[in-house]
Amino acid sequence: MTTVRAFAPGGIGNLGPGLDILGCAITGPGDAVQATRSERPGVQVIDSGHPELPTEADRNAAAIAAGEVFRRAGVSKFGIALRVEKGLPLAGGQGGSAASAVAGAVAANALLGDPLDRPELLRAALVSEERLSGRHIDNLAPSLFGGILLIRSIEPLDFDRLPAPPALRLVLVHPAMRLRTVHARAVLPATVDRATALAQATAVAAMVAAFCLGDLTRLRGAVDDRIAEPARASLLPGFAEVKRAAIDAGALGCSISGGGPSTFALTDSDETAAAILDAMLAAYGRHGITASGRVERVDERGARLEAAR
Amino acid sequence: MTTVRAFAPGGIGNLGPGLDILGCAITGPGDAVQATRSERPGVQVIDSGHPELPTEADRNAAAIAAGEVFRRAGVSKFGIALRVEKGLPLAGGQGGSAASAVAGAVAANALLGDPLDRPELLRAALVSEERLSGRHIDNLAPSLFGGILLIRSIEPLDFDRLPAPPALRLVLVHPAMRLRTVHARAVLPATVDRATALAQATAVAAMVAAFCLGDLTRLRGAVDDRIAEPARASLLPGFAEVKRAAIDAGALGCSISGGGPSTFALTDSDETAAAILDAMLAAYGRHGITASGRVERVDERGARLEAAR
Repeated sequence: MTTVRAFAPGGIGNLGPGLDILGCAITGPGDAVQATRSERPGVQVIDSGHPELPTEADRNAAAIAAGEVFRRAGVSKFGIALRVEKGLPLAGGQGGSAASAVAGAVAANALLGDPLDRPELLRAALVSEERLSGRHIDNLAPSLFGGILLIRSIEPLDFDRLPAPPALRLVLVHPAMRLRTVHARAVLPATVDRATALAQATAVAAMVAAFCLGDLTRLRGAVDDRIAEPARASLLPGFAEVKRAAIDAGALGCSISGGGPSTFALTDSDETAAAILDAMLAAYGRHGITASGRVERVDERGARLEAAR
Repeated sequence: MTTVRAFAPGGIGNLGPGLDILGCAITGPGDAVQATRSERPGVQVIDSGHPELPTEADRNAAAIAAGEVFRRAGVSKFGIALRVEKGLPLAGGQGGSAASAVAGAVAANALLGDPLDRPELLRAALVSEERLSGRHIDNLAPSLFGGILLIRSIEPLDFDRLPAPPALRLVLVHPAMRLRTVHARAVLPATVDRATALAQATAVAAMVAAFCLGDLTRLRGAVDDRIAEPARASLLPGFAEVKRAAIDAGALGCSISGGGPSTFALTDSDETAAAILDAMLAAYGRHGITASGRVERVDERGARLEAAR
């Protein structure tokens, strides 16, 4: 095999109150990496997928992860050349850097005949994520494994895969702005009072119960982030009104996707999802902010190989 | 009906990391209240059930709750006389004050022909709990409704009832000491750092997932209280060694029951439960502390009327 192509879905990290611990992969656009064996050792980025994304191997998410796979597999006699196809927005809060890293790792591993298992692939991708946006896997793990995941531990890797109720719809709206994860993390509070900590724990647990019990109406009131959302809302013009619009249109919950600026809403039917999307876009419009959006489901498959183009 | 008798089960509040938000009712001893209609208005305590428990109506858990039921039902022309049968240890961390309050409320309501619904009964019992040990319902609600409950909100009352896996066994050990809930609450930290808050949220959510998915092995590592247990452990001689003994004997988790001093361990078979109980009692013995214990299941029924004796 001299050329392979891996696709990794985007997702919603920091799902509601689940800062760093709850995330899901979603259907629709993702990032893809086409990898070709190269006689020149090391990782080369032929195409970074976006004019603003670096082609330097030590600054490109897919390349860092691919290089780490080669290192872990002990391969140094030949190299790899990457073409990244960027389906996810830059600094959008849709898990784009995680998807690029996962796709890079999966492609490199496939090119080598799959020497690494999936937990090891996650660790390789984490080297990239850690360097570019922080040590958390609530985007990485869902992009690799698919589904809704409760992250219990990074090392050793441990997560609970939660059932995704079939009716669940995720409305994802992307305002035309960027917010780098490192900046979105800088505003997080270092400490919280006990009542806030317990409310956050209740909210995460209530979301988990709603998913596990298959009772989406129990999500109402549970998508209640008391730690990250209040800190980040001020970075996101229009967010408060967009959230109100989503809830008024019937959303079971609405919050910031990842570190933002994307926002997401949860609901249980295509009809309500369409109404929520309209309401959220209109609310951004009233703030003079151009936004685009889509209605998706949970991607249960995670990263996968596709036919090389 | 001139005499009724209500039984309310004890339980484990503050179940592992679920300070104030996760609790369960357990089989075995509970508190019972026998109530008789009295021509004298108001609440009289004929027997408090224990020499150290007050018979003054405004200081007795069952009486406060019963009086509150009368007040809410608008009954003032006649009164009620109570005999409390105290099956749970005093200041033991097994939900004794909550069970007395619930039994008092249920008995008073039955005597009046059930004018109040169960959420209203909970509010009546909460008047007692709030006065005697604090505004939390992680013992009250399971004692009234039965089961394992995730408390989402006190007012309005909202909780998720989690499935109790049939194999679940709860080992409850009571060292011969007392710790009043108000004292156990005084040592709780006012603030926690963000990592602690997120770890606590993960642990509560992981316990909820284990119960909901019926996979008890997923409890391992999830009974991880970073907020209350570290603060209270110093009040409980021998606790650290007892916990270690429980885990070494195969427990899926072990922590302080309610505000202590009782300790509990979770497991998935009668055999392991018996071994854990022995190990915990032996560990207390090595500290020169007399202790008694029992193996129970989740009480799914909650408070109920029984034939008056």
